[in-house]
Amino acid sequence: MPLSERKLIEQIRRVAAKGGSVVTGIGDDCAVLSVPAGHEILVTTDFSIENVHFRRDWHPPALVGWRCLTRGLSDIAAMGGEPRAAFLSLAVAEDVPQKWVSDFLKGLLTLARKFKVPLAGGDTAQSVSGIQADIIVVGSVPKGKAILRSGAKPGDQIYVTGSLGASSAILRKLELSTRSRSKFVSLPLFLPLPLPPEILRQLRPLPRLAIGQWLRQHRVASAMIDLSDGLSTDLDHLCEESRVGAELIAEAIPRAWLGADKAPVAMEFALHGGDDYELLFTAAGSVPAKVAGVKVTRIGHIIKSRGMHLRSNGSSKPLKAGGWEHFKKKE
Amino acid sequence: MPLSERKLIEQIRRVAAKGGSVVTGIGDDCAVLSVPAGHEILVTTDFSIENVHFRRDWHPPALVGWRCLTRGLSDIAAMGGEPRAAFLSLAVAEDVPQKWVSDFLKGLLTLARKFKVPLAGGDTAQSVSGIQADIIVVGSVPKGKAILRSGAKPGDQIYVTGSLGASSAILRKLELSTRSRSKFVSLPLFLPLPLPPEILRQLRPLPRLAIGQWLRQHRVASAMIDLSDGLSTDLDHLCEESRVGAELIAEAIPRAWLGADKAPVAMEFALHGGDDYELLFTAAGSVPAKVAGVKVTRIGHIIKSRGMHLRSNGSSKPLKAGGWEHFKKKE
Repeated sequence: MPLSERKLIEQIRRVAAKGGSVVTGIGDDCAVLSVPAGHEILVTTDFSIENVHFRRDWHPPALVGWRCLTRGLSDIAAMGGEPRAAFLSLAVAEDVPQKWVSDFLKGLLTLARKFKVPLAGGDTAQSVSGIQADIIVVGSVPKGKAILRSGAKPGDQIYVTGSLGASSAILRKLELSTRSRSKFVSLPLFLPLPLPPEILRQLRPLPRLAIGQWLRQHRVASAMIDLSDGLSTDLDHLCEESRVGAELIAEAIPRAWLGADKAPVAMEFALHGGDDYELLFTAAGSVPAKVAGVKVTRIGHIIKSRGMHLRSNGSSKPLKAGGWEHFKKKE
Repeated sequence: MPLSERKLIEQIRRVAAKGGSVVTGIGDDCAVLSVPAGHEILVTTDFSIENVHFRRDWHPPALVGWRCLTRGLSDIAAMGGEPRAAFLSLAVAEDVPQKWVSDFLKGLLTLARKFKVPLAGGDTAQSVSGIQADIIVVGSVPKGKAILRSGAKPGDQIYVTGSLGASSAILRKLELSTRSRSKFVSLPLFLPLPLPPEILRQLRPLPRLAIGQWLRQHRVASAMIDLSDGLSTDLDHLCEESRVGAELIAEAIPRAWLGADKAPVAMEFALHGGDDYELLFTAAGSVPAKVAGVKVTRIGHIIKSRGMHLRSNGSSKPLKAGGWEHFKKKE
């Protein structure tokens, strides 16, 4: 059944929430949000575009919706903020089935409810082809307390939450899997479609909101960024904004394990892979090994001279920001 | 020259502003905005999609950028709000020339500066084809003072600012003009490309921010909406939210005049045309004939029974929400 814009609006209106910070939600020219006294506002926007950020034949629609909102919530987490409301601008071509959109919204709302973030508005349009979603998350943080990228100092230690590389390693397996099918080549990296549940779980990251807020409340982090483009690229962003350099210890970087594999993902994925939505932060003082139930790992330290280095087995080599863009080019 | 995502980011970063409400702008996970004490936040998002909202062969890029931001600012105006910051999510295909994007940004920023609205963030992506822009405007309004669509009462008079129908009438002329070229038919509606300056001016609407704020400050308007979908559709939205009906007087509707034409645009454009970005509001008390230098015209009144009616030469007929969608179908 083709999807009219009116249906799309009705569908989103049905699932949209009121309450919490939302004074007036969908159905007016703007949404009206209340802000706690003494708070500043956080705003982030992130595209999820078909055949750029996801593929309809690889990613189940609920997963696309979940990850679409993850992108926004993860940015709020990286400031130590609290999400207040989400907004979805959704453009869908006429030939996209109604069920795809329903399932996409279901996935997005499952995550929204988990973190009590109301969907308070947005826009809908008919696209010329495919699906383009833009997620906007508005959050807040006590005045002057947002954790910026620019606060890292030489001597600060560098930490990451969780483990890295699952998302990009799965993506690579899917690519090889698709190629192997078309070329009749059998590869050990073969990943079946539809994706098995243990793989799907790893593609459904939880934004690290509780950790971000804990780090802000306890004044632990001097700088923070979320890992959306990949460790090397995002660390480079943090160093650039803080005007410092960094040295990482290769062996310390916590690499993800995929379902049935007998080893963690290759270092390449953990270093450059992207889409992990973990937090990368720096701290001068001590940091617990676990925050809000999630492992926190020290992976290096901030140095005064610009540039990044990767130390492994006692020797050090330069590390280039080689995240998502570079990673893509090699394929 | 093809457009890389990195270039796009750099380009936007160069033009992005800090100051005003923007505490931290582009270059962190989120923008940080300050909010005046006692204010609530307004949020609106609007797509501008190539071949849906604009055509690259018809609309100069600066005009597309201008109108992209107009959509957002007009929504803030319709709440009686003050804009605080704009955010742009921009997806551009590799084959879109750098110059197109530069000119698009120039147009957007010309309007942004006019209303002192800093561009404080957003997202960039490579699109699969064409251009997709999503503009987000965050504004604020004293707590509880936003003018909603839902406050109209039977007996309230209905007003519009400025004049209606220019945008859609020009669009129709462009369509006929294109057809006449391909079919070698000469039509009186012919509009030359590139567009003459007096026509371009009418495609560059000024969001009615000062009027919206005046109406809020003086507690004049009981309900308000901006005219983006067309008078009949937007009045229908207002009536629906207020649970009332409306009667319009055809002769009172202020129709736009196009450059060299000897009569105002056809009633069809003023009634259903869309993209005028004027304000439609209701008021119980008296309203000046001019607010903030712009003409305000009484065009009808709110009635208790649901449904809309158009009165002309003493007789009344039902008026259907026949705005943009309906208008498009006829073409």
